[in-house]
Amino acid sequence: MKKKYNKKVLSESYIIEKYLKKLNLKKKETYNFDNDGAYLNISQNKKIVVSNDTIVEKVDFFSNDRADSIAQKIICSNLSDISSMGAVPYCFNLSLGLPKKINKKWLYIFSTKILKLQKKYNFFLLGGDIAQTRNITISATFFGKVTNGKIIDRNSSKIKDDIWITGNLGNSFVGLMFKKNLLKANKIIKKNFIKKYQFPFPCMIGSQLGSIANSAIDVSDGFYGDLDKLLFRKNFGASIDMKSIPILSKVKKLIFLQKIKINKLLSAGDDYEILFTSSPQKRNIINSLSKKKKIKITKVGTIVNKRGIYTDGKKLNLSKKSFQYNF
Amino acid sequence: MKKKYNKKVLSESYIIEKYLKKLNLKKKETYNFDNDGAYLNISQNKKIVVSNDTIVEKVDFFSNDRADSIAQKIICSNLSDISSMGAVPYCFNLSLGLPKKINKKWLYIFSTKILKLQKKYNFFLLGGDIAQTRNITISATFFGKVTNGKIIDRNSSKIKDDIWITGNLGNSFVGLMFKKNLLKANKIIKKNFIKKYQFPFPCMIGSQLGSIANSAIDVSDGFYGDLDKLLFRKNFGASIDMKSIPILSKVKKLIFLQKIKINKLLSAGDDYEILFTSSPQKRNIINSLSKKKKIKITKVGTIVNKRGIYTDGKKLNLSKKSFQYNF
Repeated sequence: MKKKYNKKVLSESYIIEKYLKKLNLKKKETYNFDNDGAYLNISQNKKIVVSNDTIVEKVDFFSNDRADSIAQKIICSNLSDISSMGAVPYCFNLSLGLPKKINKKWLYIFSTKILKLQKKYNFFLLGGDIAQTRNITISATFFGKVTNGKIIDRNSSKIKDDIWITGNLGNSFVGLMFKKNLLKANKIIKKNFIKKYQFPFPCMIGSQLGSIANSAIDVSDGFYGDLDKLLFRKNFGASIDMKSIPILSKVKKLIFLQKIKINKLLSAGDDYEILFTSSPQKRNIINSLSKKKKIKITKVGTIVNKRGIYTDGKKLNLSKKSFQYNF
Repeated sequence: MKKKYNKKVLSESYIIEKYLKKLNLKKKETYNFDNDGAYLNISQNKKIVVSNDTIVEKVDFFSNDRADSIAQKIICSNLSDISSMGAVPYCFNLSLGLPKKINKKWLYIFSTKILKLQKKYNFFLLGGDIAQTRNITISATFFGKVTNGKIIDRNSSKIKDDIWITGNLGNSFVGLMFKKNLLKANKIIKKNFIKKYQFPFPCMIGSQLGSIANSAIDVSDGFYGDLDKLLFRKNFGASIDMKSIPILSKVKKLIFLQKIKINKLLSAGDDYEILFTSSPQKRNIINSLSKKKKIKITKVGTIVNKRGIYTDGKKLNLSKKSFQYNF
């Protein structure tokens, strides 16, 4: 659970704040629902991180999406949460809501892709449940191990912390635009971006950040929105240097040609990169880690003692900073 | 995961056997998907039991069912699994799939009932996820603690074990018959049985059975079917003394009047009682426990070295021993 509170509509954040928070009994394991996940308190040094994500046909993916794409999305979105908490994957529980249209081919492709990802990221299926639903509804609960006992949460950033982001932002959004035929390009470019949308990869750097990052969150619902969630409880702000935002040159070209707007791209979901903050003294360590792990990590700004997101000095005023369901 | 394998149809058991089992990598924590739940292997003496259950509108409950009934069903079905594994509840993750029709009143009633059950059974909400779905789809992952390190599984029964069952069987099924207007009775009787169907209670005796039971399963999909699951892997059978089956006198009357069939009642779901087997030497301990905890526990049969369920000596031949989805 991890949404910001907006009392005007019956939004996810409102439901969590008003109806679900009372159920956490203020237990420390829950982070008061302010984090990417929670943990099971087994012993002082052995904590199991727990994350949960659900994807629904026609909402989070298209009905004609391939079974291997759906498999990758449910796994990736959860692994991304596990990583953002500084953990390595251990195992997961799968709740499969399947409609009657599901056939053996679908199940074969779906499960084979999961097995492939299990081998890549080293985890296994612990158990689960099958139910009959009208639309495909897949919920996964992931478990991660924190080796050094330190879970990274999203609410421990400090003033003057550097703000870092892994990978490149917006590729998935551009893929979605192509998929919806809202953008045009040659076949190969189009195909490549749609692939980035359909087969996202999590950035599993999190377990390396335990002694480096003060706070972290995975960017899954939009850069601005997820950054704002990281700032929210501390009542901090962020000064962002826009030209440093990591964006592929092909995407930059689309922005330059005004085919897509940068602020829309930075409010769109499915990036699955890790946003973290750390002391400026850690810069060398982070740059070394980036080289060693061959993962792009870019400093994009600084935590400031003034509420809001400031892009090149100007306060950002966006109504929709990230994706959220409203009921 | 816990279904028997039937290769003729695309059933839950077929999906588990053919597509999902390969994903457990034969890890011992998973019980090869042959148990009510699994466990997280933290250390030798500290195991966390994990169960998972999903309920779907129009399949597991009616669209006009009250929010507090739905809340009680998702909690009860999971607590029942936790109990059957010999654990006490610790916390749970909730994945809420909600349609647009959901309003504040529904959410208030739903969450208030959960809070009430949390207080009764001592657990809290760890985290979760909200998604938009067409029909209400609620998935919960429950965590239980095993205090003495011994998890009870369903596949360790022994020849000549006594077979015991808690509570009374069939009340929920009779309630469902009334709800569907397939049975008639006076208003009060009808109301009482429908209540048993809508507000089932788990039997939380499991954590007391660690040193008593050789095997256990919760009866949630039907007595015969769940008993068969307990026998299946060992290739054992059960000799059942039909007159000892605990059934309320009001229900016995309905059977006597041929309003309902005993074999249908014993193949119907939602009993949420605990079926366990133990050495005949434990009879006194079990009877004392029953008195002390004020929980009815009845010996209904014996484990035999011959595959099948034998009711009063005759081999049972039922096509549908329990509830299962087919796709």
